[in-house]
Amino acid sequence: VAATVAVGLAALRRGLATPLGLVTADPAFEALNLASPGDIVLGGHDVRTQSVLDTARAMHLGSGVFGDGLLDRVRGELAAFEAEIRGGYVAQNAGNLSVSSPGRTTGEQAASLQSVINRLAEDIRDFAARNRCRRVVVVNVASTEPMFELRAEHQTWRRLAAALGTTASKRGQHGGTGNKPSTRTPSPTEGGRYEPLLPASAIYALAAIEAGCPYVNFTPSTGVDIPAIIQHARRRGVPIMGRDGKTGETLLKSALAPMFRHRALRILSWDGHNILGNHDGAVLSDPAVKASKLRTKDGVVARALGYETDTTVSIQHVPSLDDWKIAWDHVHFQGFLGVKMSLQFTWQGCDSILAAPLVIDLARLAEFHARKGVGGVMSHLACFFKRPMGTDKAGLPQQIDMLDGYVAGHAGREAGAAARRPNRRGRRGRAAPISPRKGRRS
Amino acid sequence: VAATVAVGLAALRRGLATPLGLVTADPAFEALNLASPGDIVLGGHDVRTQSVLDTARAMHLGSGVFGDGLLDRVRGELAAFEAEIRGGYVAQNAGNLSVSSPGRTTGEQAASLQSVINRLAEDIRDFAARNRCRRVVVVNVASTEPMFELRAEHQTWRRLAAALGTTASKRGQHGGTGNKPSTRTPSPTEGGRYEPLLPASAIYALAAIEAGCPYVNFTPSTGVDIPAIIQHARRRGVPIMGRDGKTGETLLKSALAPMFRHRALRILSWDGHNILGNHDGAVLSDPAVKASKLRTKDGVVARALGYETDTTVSIQHVPSLDDWKIAWDHVHFQGFLGVKMSLQFTWQGCDSILAAPLVIDLARLAEFHARKGVGGVMSHLACFFKRPMGTDKAGLPQQIDMLDGYVAGHAGREAGAAARRPNRRGRRGRAAPISPRKGRRS
Amino acid sequence: VAATVAVGLAALRRGLATPLGLVTADPAFEALNLASPGDIVLGGHDVRTQSVLDTARAMHLGSGVFGDGLLDRVRGELAAFEAEIRGGYVAQNAGNLSVSSPGRTTGEQAASLQSVINRLAEDIRDFAARNRCRRVVVVNVASTEPMFELRAEHQTWRRLAAALGTTASKRGQHGGTGNKPSTRTPSPTEGGRYEPLLPASAIYALAAIEAGCPYVNFTPSTGVDIPAIIQHARRRGVPIMGRDGKTGETLLKSALAPMFRHRALRILSWDGHNILGNHDGAVLSDPAVKASKLRTKDGVVARALGYETDTTVSIQHVPSLDDWKIAWDHVHFQGFLGVKMSLQFTWQGCDSILAAPLVIDLARLAEFHARKGVGGVMSHLACFFKRPMGTDKAGLPQQIDMLDGYVAGHAGREAGAAARRPNRRGRRGRAAPISPRKGRRS
Amino acid sequence: VAATVAVGLAALRRGLATPLGLVTADPAFEALNLASPGDIVLGGHDVRTQSVLDTARAMHLGSGVFGDGLLDRVRGELAAFEAEIRGGYVAQNAGNLSVSSPGRTTGEQAASLQSVINRLAEDIRDFAARNRCRRVVVVNVASTEPMFELRAEHQTWRRLAAALGTTASKRGQHGGTGNKPSTRTPSPTEGGRYEPLLPASAIYALAAIEAGCPYVNFTPSTGVDIPAIIQHARRRGVPIMGRDGKTGETLLKSALAPMFRHRALRILSWDGHNILGNHDGAVLSDPAVKASKLRTKDGVVARALGYETDTTVSIQHVPSLDDWKIAWDHVHFQGFLGVKMSLQFTWQGCDSILAAPLVIDLARLAEFHARKGVGGVMSHLACFFKRPMGTDKAGLPQQIDMLDGYVAGHAGREAGAAARRPNRRGRRGRAAPISPRKGRRS
Repeated sequence: VAATVAVGLAALRRGLATPLGLVTADPAFEALNLASPGDIVLGGHDVRTQSVLDTARAMHLGSGVFGDGLLDRVRGELAAFEAEIRGGYVAQNAGNLSVSSPGRTTGEQAASLQSVINRLAEDIRDFAARNRCRRVVVVNVASTEPMFELRAEHQTWRRLAAALGTTASKRGQHGGTGNKPSTRTPSPTEGGRYEPLLPASAIYALAAIEAGCPYVNFTPSTGVDIPAIIQHARRRGVPIMGRDGKTGETLLKSALAPMFRHRALRILSWDGHNILGNHDGAVLSDPAVKASKLRTKDGVVARALGYETDTTVSIQHVPSLDDWKIAWDHVHFQGFLGVKMSLQFTWQGCDSILAAPLVIDLARLAEFHARKGVGGVMSHLACFFKRPMGTDKAGLPQQIDMLDGYVAGHAGREAGAAARRPNRRGRRGRAAPISPRKGRRS
Repeated sequence: VAATVAVGLAALRRGLATPLGLVTADPAFEALNLASPGDIVLGGHDVRTQSVLDTARAMHLGSGVFGDGLLDRVRGELAAFEAEIRGGYVAQNAGNLSVSSPGRTTGEQAASLQSVINRLAEDIRDFAARNRCRRVVVVNVASTEPMFELRAEHQTWRRLAAALGTTASKRGQHGGTGNKPSTRTPSPTEGGRYEPLLPASAIYALAAIEAGCPYVNFTPSTGVDIPAIIQHARRRGVPIMGRDGKTGETLLKSALAPMFRHRALRILSWDGHNILGNHDGAVLSDPAVKASKLRTKDGVVARALGYETDTTVSIQHVPSLDDWKIAWDHVHFQGFLGVKMSLQFTWQGCDSILAAPLVIDLARLAEFHARKGVGGVMSHLACFFKRPMGTDKAGLPQQIDMLDGYVAGHAGREAGAAARRPNRRGRRGRAAPISPRKGRRS
Repeated sequence: VAATVAVGLAALRRGLATPLGLVTADPAFEALNLASPGDIVLGGHDVRTQSVLDTARAMHLGSGVFGDGLLDRVRGELAAFEAEIRGGYVAQNAGNLSVSSPGRTTGEQAASLQSVINRLAEDIRDFAARNRCRRVVVVNVASTEPMFELRAEHQTWRRLAAALGTTASKRGQHGGTGNKPSTRTPSPTEGGRYEPLLPASAIYALAAIEAGCPYVNFTPSTGVDIPAIIQHARRRGVPIMGRDGKTGETLLKSALAPMFRHRALRILSWDGHNILGNHDGAVLSDPAVKASKLRTKDGVVARALGYETDTTVSIQHVPSLDDWKIAWDHVHFQGFLGVKMSLQFTWQGCDSILAAPLVIDLARLAEFHARKGVGGVMSHLACFFKRPMGTDKAGLPQQIDMLDGYVAGHAGREAGAAARRPNRRGRRGRAAPISPRKGRRS
Repeated sequence: VAATVAVGLAALRRGLATPLGLVTADPAFEALNLASPGDIVLGGHDVRTQSVLDTARAMHLGSGVFGDGLLDRVRGELAAFEAEIRGGYVAQNAGNLSVSSPGRTTGEQAASLQSVINRLAEDIRDFAARNRCRRVVVVNVASTEPMFELRAEHQTWRRLAAALGTTASKRGQHGGTGNKPSTRTPSPTEGGRYEPLLPASAIYALAAIEAGCPYVNFTPSTGVDIPAIIQHARRRGVPIMGRDGKTGETLLKSALAPMFRHRALRILSWDGHNILGNHDGAVLSDPAVKASKLRTKDGVVARALGYETDTTVSIQHVPSLDDWKIAWDHVHFQGFLGVKMSLQFTWQGCDSILAAPLVIDLARLAEFHARKGVGGVMSHLACFFKRPMGTDKAGLPQQIDMLDGYVAGHAGREAGAAARRPNRRGRRGRAAPISPRKGRRS
């Protein structure tokens, strides 16, 4: 996704692409004065060694995106992004802040999780200073982590902060190697399976909050969806949001379920089957990771309908599809006089192409929210997520209404303030998969 | 559809069915005190000779609806309905008010179209008196008529009324024999093709207005969608609405197009292919009739998107499907960086089962509107129609908002008025295909 | 399936149905003088307690099969079948020959697996004598068993026969309780998991061979697909065949894969997703059982193509579908100049309705083969099976050629012999799920 | 198609592609010593003005075929082909042998249809001499012509030959302008509509026969499918075959219908809906042309099943699909006890990519047949055609058997002759749409 964001921003800046797929390209958003693509700078943390350009080339060859010659023309931007990528947090190998990639950060031993967080936050501040960014937005676009269950110490910031200071970072767990699920050392106190204090996605989230940057979790991983961290972000005045960008099958579910509800057509069962070929699909072969993904995908129908029904979701990794994702859904419903009828759909989408513009949308909208000085959960962005924080509205139309209302409300105020505003240049950054995403406003 | 409405109302009344598929069964409508199924009486006009019971039996055998034994249990209600069906308007055979069905109305020569209208209105008043209905709603559920083009005399009621008084009814054209398209006598003044003054659906609409009854056009035929008639209904304080109940493929279009619009995914083409086995499908073999149907189906996507795009719709009659209708749609769209992606869906629905509860919904809501004493176009009912009158909102979520707003507004007022209202019994009627639908409140 | 076979045979006998779905109804088979439906008597072993009539009624209500009144008209035949059902083999509860169903066989302790086999064989002989059947065919239509791995003692009949005499039957494992997977007592010698000597399907197969009756395995379970048992059947001159009736998705795979092979279109991946609502689907929720099913479904494509490719199969239990099974397959293939293209299909079939006529076909053809006095694997019946024994031909056209060749060869000989043959009456029996299927020729 | 054939042959020759999609790449064909791609030279007749390279480029951009850089590497071959294209036969403009394309042939007045044929045959002979081809195969890959009805003069060669000598060529009709159907001058003798003596595809066929070259009709147009021409070809010893390459939907029909027949599952209806974006789709907007196409597509199912059933086919032009063709088929069938079930499939194929290798296959096989000195209808090539000449076998497996039998028979003879054969170089040519295809063996 990160590579596609980089290619896309460069193409938009150079006028090689129209803003198709960008929600915020709608004229309704003009009044908000969102950061323009030309004002955004990308950076990030990563644990993978493949360069951004190579990733983009592989996508082009395998999936047929990025028309002839585009990658050659944006090579400069991709290299600039590459230079701003720092080694990510790898927990399992002696708790250091390192990646195995030659030429990036060498491993450094960290004394505690808090010192890891501090180090990551410093990376973000350095990035902002070096690129004269006024504001940085961190977006998590890493691979999905295994399921993470909350415990008592995750309920309040006081307890979690205490634990962070004393827990050695090697107990922390890495959130997305991508290639294979991390080996978890069994903890003697917990019997069968060791559970780290926080997953990597939460470590990055805390680093963002530490640096005062909005954090958006575009993955099914935990991220900021922990009561203690929500409490912390609210107090610090940092905007946060998640989970899991809604790009394809779930988008359709949230558009269609309200239709069935309106018509009082009872859903008897909704079975969704997904086949996908990319790295995400490979990671999802790990049952623990798949469980995490299924949880965000599966609840949408029942929440949008307002009643429990039989929903099933399956995911199969089919490498020949490369970055394409195909979802086949079978919706079985009952109408007047008990007659059973059905709807099937097949969605054929290119995953990064669907996700990348939403990442840009979220960065622009989070930057705007931070500019207004408001912290906490940005529930008005629910329409972008499979499992939005801060609201139980699961129907797409209701979620769009929330965003429309937010935009309309701020559009009025912006119009009033327009005369007084000094000139600014806004920038924002990002990261290859597994890393946080950064941006700045200088 | 009419037979299914009759079976369904009887089943609801006897507690043999739950109100699945009824929009107005939602608790939000409770505050409106809509007529309950037990208070509705059916009647109608028809030109077909098959009895309601035989129609229902054929549907049961061919399409597998109406579970074991249901038809036996509601036989009484079907017979009562049958007894209230009068011969419909047949224009081509010497302009008389007749049907070929033995045992119904014998042919009577009518002096002018106005006298036909008067006669039909009298049928409605007789029905209301005989069944002690307080209010009657006329719903057109006849087969689709050929395309009808508006001319100068359809622009104002003054001009149309004048023409009605002088035009012999044999010039009028019958709107839906079902079995074969009517032979139209060439008019000497218009060269190739004779155009009647008004199609049958408009004749029935005028009869309803004459009798002071709300008129709802559930078909793609013209009905009240004529400026002169809209003007007339508004002045007479009669509520009217149309066109073409939105039951399947178009319902999906209106739910999905707003999703694509929100996400700025550009629709390159939307091809819809429909196969259906029933009488409607046979009638649609006539290209002039098919053109009429395609017009209401085809415009929805562009109106919901807000821009013109390449939309195509085809309809094929496949008798083995009986009352089932299968729609396959291919949506080709373009996203970020110009990548083309697609969505396909297959909708497998039973036509009458989807339509019948909406007919009941519309009758209940039209009766309510008439009870409030308001005439003119009921644009708040847009969500029920493929090509709603009085609004250009084509997105389902926007249309649902209109209905929700109407209900919420009236719910407050109803609550205030509840204490004062005397006891009433509501009834409503219907008709076999091609006939108007009647209902009453005694 | 058994209930549908019973309803179908009765309907055919009474002239209430045409032989749709029966391969052997083709005129080409006339020359073989196969047993006619009127000559077949059904019996069987079962461990479930629901009566045949109740099973048939549940299918009628849930799945909409067996048109109005059919079950009432064949009630006599269903009762006769019911009377011929004996309690099946239940291993886990003290190794006795019993079912929990009241009114069937009470539990009896068996000394060894061989004594269980003897007892089941005696049931078959009794059935034949009581119904004056000249020949009995045993068809396994029980629920799928968990995967069973062959060991050294399964390689020769000498070793297996020795083990059968000494192994207590309680070590045997029951092959299909249907309701929940059996609890398997861990064996001390094998560490984690106890493996029985033979699965139930093989016990029934040995009983059939003991009684000199052809055995056909219509399920993915092991049945006769064990070298030792094949050897035994060949020596005893008993015809055998399996595994897993090819009714839907796999039938299509075997018809389509040869098309791709012929056209040199390279299959990159073939993903099949199945949703089904019946008892089979519930049993398949046990991962060990699902593995067994997937093994027979999954190999077909590669064998029919002649090269290994990426095939995936998933099965989801969706109760609202009742006896309907829906398969969605996505075939990704590569053509000229490396272009990737795709085929999707959705198969919507009623499982028992597809399987039952094949069961009748197999009984007729096995009876014919036994009549000719030939034993061993009936590989000419490959077209009926997902994973046919005795051949590696996986393409449907090639399999049909095998059957056609067999029929043509025997048709000539039959014609020659026709004048000499005395009059005979043929009968054949069956069983509710989990039981063997019996038939006779008196 | 012609451009793709040219790109593909060049790619094969240069080792830039593997022979995916080529039926004759199967090892079974090795024994026939077919002409290799490196031995084939392309030429042709065309009435369109777009160059081969531009056509190929447009396909690359619109449809995503021909991977990055391929067209640059085969530019030489495309130019060589371009140089061998001659102006095609255009009838409506004063019967001359011309195209409007600047730089190709200027218009020349032809005295009779026979003189047109002579001129086209001379082009072929010149091509063969210039390129030292031993043998030329003409393949029609032009756009589809309108339906052409046979009359009395088409029944015998004697009558047709007489008419050819006396009919002015301006009466002939042009076979495929592609952009718009030709204006046909009404003939005074036939009232409403002028019918030419022969369609263009037959004129080219006669030219091929005149030059002694095998003729293969890859389109639904008439070509050699005229009794008089079949008679003529047989007498002249020229191999001929047609009609309409079987590339997608119809290929599936011919693979699936035999499966339903084998299983005695009765087809109630088979509805096929095709959407396509290329030039062919635009031409098919003309109802007369569409009728021609539908005729070859529609009969396959009934012929493969052996009984008449309800088949419908529709075609819709959807430009956004470019060269991609999507077919959705709904197969409604009836099984045991009358239960109705269904199969749907969606085929997504790139038209030229599917067709081009078959054109190469047919050229190789026709060259081989001509080399053996046999004339007349090559019915053993039935598997390549929607409506094969010389056989009524419509099932794909049966058609493949015919080809396999032919190959096996000749393989034996070739093996015997191998030692004696002198060295040869084989060449073959082709044409842009609407033109004949040429090849040689020097």
